[in-house]
Amino acid sequence: MNKNTRHGQILLTPGPLTTSDRVRAALTRDWGSRDKAFIAMTARIRETLCRLAGAEEGYSCIPVQGSGTFAVEATLGTLLPRADGKCLILINGAYGKRMAKICDYLGRAYEVYETAEDTPPDPEAVSDILSADEKISLIAMVHCETTSGILNPVRKIAAVAREFDRKLIIDAMSSFGALPIDLAELGATALIASANKCLQGAPGLGYAIIENAALAASKDNAASLSLDLHDQAEYMDRSGQWRFTPPTHVVAALDQAMAELAEEGGIEARGSRYQANCDRLVSGLTEMGFELFLPSSLQAPIIVTIRTPADPAFDFSDMYDALNEKGIILYPGAVTQEKTFRIGCIGDIGPEDIAWALEEIAAYLSAKGLGAEALKAG
Amino acid sequence: MNKNTRHGQILLTPGPLTTSDRVRAALTRDWGSRDKAFIAMTARIRETLCRLAGAEEGYSCIPVQGSGTFAVEATLGTLLPRADGKCLILINGAYGKRMAKICDYLGRAYEVYETAEDTPPDPEAVSDILSADEKISLIAMVHCETTSGILNPVRKIAAVAREFDRKLIIDAMSSFGALPIDLAELGATALIASANKCLQGAPGLGYAIIENAALAASKDNAASLSLDLHDQAEYMDRSGQWRFTPPTHVVAALDQAMAELAEEGGIEARGSRYQANCDRLVSGLTEMGFELFLPSSLQAPIIVTIRTPADPAFDFSDMYDALNEKGIILYPGAVTQEKTFRIGCIGDIGPEDIAWALEEIAAYLSAKGLGAEALKAG
Repeated sequence: MNKNTRHGQILLTPGPLTTSDRVRAALTRDWGSRDKAFIAMTARIRETLCRLAGAEEGYSCIPVQGSGTFAVEATLGTLLPRADGKCLILINGAYGKRMAKICDYLGRAYEVYETAEDTPPDPEAVSDILSADEKISLIAMVHCETTSGILNPVRKIAAVAREFDRKLIIDAMSSFGALPIDLAELGATALIASANKCLQGAPGLGYAIIENAALAASKDNAASLSLDLHDQAEYMDRSGQWRFTPPTHVVAALDQAMAELAEEGGIEARGSRYQANCDRLVSGLTEMGFELFLPSSLQAPIIVTIRTPADPAFDFSDMYDALNEKGIILYPGAVTQEKTFRIGCIGDIGPEDIAWALEEIAAYLSAKGLGAEALKAG
Repeated sequence: MNKNTRHGQILLTPGPLTTSDRVRAALTRDWGSRDKAFIAMTARIRETLCRLAGAEEGYSCIPVQGSGTFAVEATLGTLLPRADGKCLILINGAYGKRMAKICDYLGRAYEVYETAEDTPPDPEAVSDILSADEKISLIAMVHCETTSGILNPVRKIAAVAREFDRKLIIDAMSSFGALPIDLAELGATALIASANKCLQGAPGLGYAIIENAALAASKDNAASLSLDLHDQAEYMDRSGQWRFTPPTHVVAALDQAMAELAEEGGIEARGSRYQANCDRLVSGLTEMGFELFLPSSLQAPIIVTIRTPADPAFDFSDMYDALNEKGIILYPGAVTQEKTFRIGCIGDIGPEDIAWALEEIAAYLSAKGLGAEALKAG
């Protein structure tokens, strides 16, 4: 443990991430899932999430347990009609591709507009696709694509969606809670996110915030009982309860995590802290000689993707193990097409934690005799 | 809080239920979901669950996050072929009915054999249905139907399934961990259960234990990415990892909970404790004058269903609130066709906790002037 950090261990990953002591303490009470106190907690979470998304009026928040993918699948499966629904999926990474895979499983029609992993979608190209295909009723996009950490132009795409009167679903999994978003202003139909990214709760819980009109029109679309958000919303609006046993401890942790978001000063303050983490990480890594995957103009303050050094003396897996022993857990999975690794900037961590990680990385590189020259991506 | 119990609060529900201090403490560590330590934990849980189910050889355990219903839907959706699969569902309560609802959503063919909520399925009737319909490839049944607490004759139905060479899926959600079951001996294809019933973990995690041959033959059956157990099993066998962010804290709690099951002496010892809880509860309630829904021969030691007294002076909701204030949380949801309420016997509780609940119920009834005569179901 480092004297500069409050934590004995930090996770520098895109989630699960480092949670606060109070969030973890909130996990330690057993709740009756149909008890009044838990019903009140569920209602409070739903309301607060809507408010954070600029969706107080005309939208509902529907929680869905499972990973973010469960929530994405539930939203697509609920909002896309079985027979005549067609979706345009904007892809520049693994999470965009996953939406296409979900549509394959569900048997829903879709078209893909794919750009390179370091290239945001071009609103004009989206406009052209919509002009050419009236069957496309819905656009699905990822706000911050965790594959690379790229920030996609949600306002510009939303403007195109409004112009053509098509629905827009935003997968804001890794951005919501840190980057401002206003669903009503965007005119977007739905936002999907999870408890354990920028809200800093525990994993196991996602949610969709959906326009009421679209939700009301979605009855009988879903081909899954567990993932039918229309059915869950109807039951929850009526009874205040989850249809099936919820992950009570994880729900309570999210409730606490959202109280801490308010204490911190809301989304803007949290975004600033993450930006400071990201800036510190980017400058530290760059100074060492690492090359980053994205230009700073496209870099969201969520996760930084680093090109793997070409020098065979650099072994990410070995560096991962060395930092792990110190209590710093990097992210061992890379999903870009080029060789990269990733370090997250989110969670209950500050620049002092990033500084600790940078110190340990520098110490590791020094011990291995890897100078700036050895860190070039080639 | 009562001096006889270790807990400040007890949940007498069919789950979420009372967990131990150590299980709740296990919730308070952040884990990297792709880290080696977490991968080892996942492997340990999978192996232990197979061993507990008598399924060390020829079976695999596939965890699936979400409530038990998610795991049931994932298992049916993965094991029932889309085109020519047909399922016989044995129903005597809400959970059997839910399997039929899942098949409706999935668009899979099924037939229903329904008996009254206090009547187990008759193996001979099952035999007749199978004789008459060769298209039925799979039988699905609930071991302990939590609707009433009835124990269904899994050995007898398994014998019929073997005789006709049909697959058998057992929803053992509320029995697994307390009532012995041996999948290999039964020749059953799959068992489905969850972390937070008799294993005494936290909610948010289920699993299926599936015969390898059936699992291998199930590729491309699922119409859901999130709930495709074949895809999850293949990925997990290869990488040791979950496909999507798992509920790491809940997984760690299950790992701890299973260590405590072993400490207690395994399934037999746990079943004995629950039986003692159930016996104490049944005798206490009967002595007060309550009438039980099931005869003792059909009562599993999981949850007791009580007929609602006919006297309008008895108000379950009021009794619920009164006990809640003392720290005893009963189960406010009834799903039987007759008017009933339920009190659970499972979780990290012993006869001393049941005695506490009985004392408080007696005190409540006395304060309301409700004697034995007033508790008759009429």
